[in-house]
Amino acid sequence: MTINEIAENDCRMILGRGSLGRLGCALNDQPYIVPIYFAYEPDFFYVLSTVGQKIHWMRENPKVCIQVDEIEDQSRWASVIANGTYEELPEPADSPERTHARKLLEKQHHWWLNAIAERRAKVDDLLIDPIFFRIHIDSMTGLRASGATAES
Amino acid sequence: MTINEIAENDCRMILGRGSLGRLGCALNDQPYIVPIYFAYEPDFFYVLSTVGQKIHWMRENPKVCIQVDEIEDQSRWASVIANGTYEELPEPADSPERTHARKLLEKQHHWWLNAIAERRAKVDDLLIDPIFFRIHIDSMTGLRASGATAES
Repeated sequence: MTINEIAENDCRMILGRGSLGRLGCALNDQPYIVPIYFAYEPDFFYVLSTVGQKIHWMRENPKVCIQVDEIEDQSRWASVIANGTYEELPEPADSPERTHARKLLEKQHHWWLNAIAERRAKVDDLLIDPIFFRIHIDSMTGLRASGATAES
Repeated sequence: MTINEIAENDCRMILGRGSLGRLGCALNDQPYIVPIYFAYEPDFFYVLSTVGQKIHWMRENPKVCIQVDEIEDQSRWASVIANGTYEELPEPADSPERTHARKLLEKQHHWWLNAIAERRAKVDDLLIDPIFFRIHIDSMTGLRASGATAES
């Protein structure tokens, strides 16, 4: 097995195929990771979320990263890390940015809208209205591990 | 689907079944995530790594987190986040701590030792000697999403 850096174009293809990633944020140099479902367009990840720790932290410190991988087995995998900036998509709910984000996400993630609806109903708390945000990608790098007979 | 917090004991069971997680570290409030294979014992994750960005960052700032999930499908998953402290396991290679870490990791991860050997041979650079480290778990929390018919 060998591990090699991959080109930015390969990174973008992995992001384009993906929908599940891990979002990292940090406050006072304490990192925090949550799994997220996203919709990717060049230079942006779009994400729908409830308000919680990650939103509070990203409002304080918009420097974030998103890591996405494709793991076939322990010796064949690729991992992309994108550094970016948190941008909350503004109210009102029918603003062009939120409408665009909603359309992209609904293609993949009906279930998630349902989950938020359920959670909202359950706790009866307006604070968990859905938040749309996007991450502007500032830079990205990737690694790929290949089996001994298929070095990249 | 509903999303609920899970008890610490459930978190520990998920960590005990797992071997793949995502390690988060941060420097100057920029987060960074890498996938890692680990061996878990109560209160510690043991990890084998080559020297690279994550090691440099954790030496500067030992506050890290490890996120581990079990994703069955989009409405049935669990995610655990453990906050912890980076501790590099000391030289020499046959110190009790490193021997313990190596034994735990070798049970699961022969492939990874091979990967490091290959990489070392390839770039012919002593700086990529393997590093053993562990993360002391300071706190952990978890969430579980359940389908509508199987609320936890």
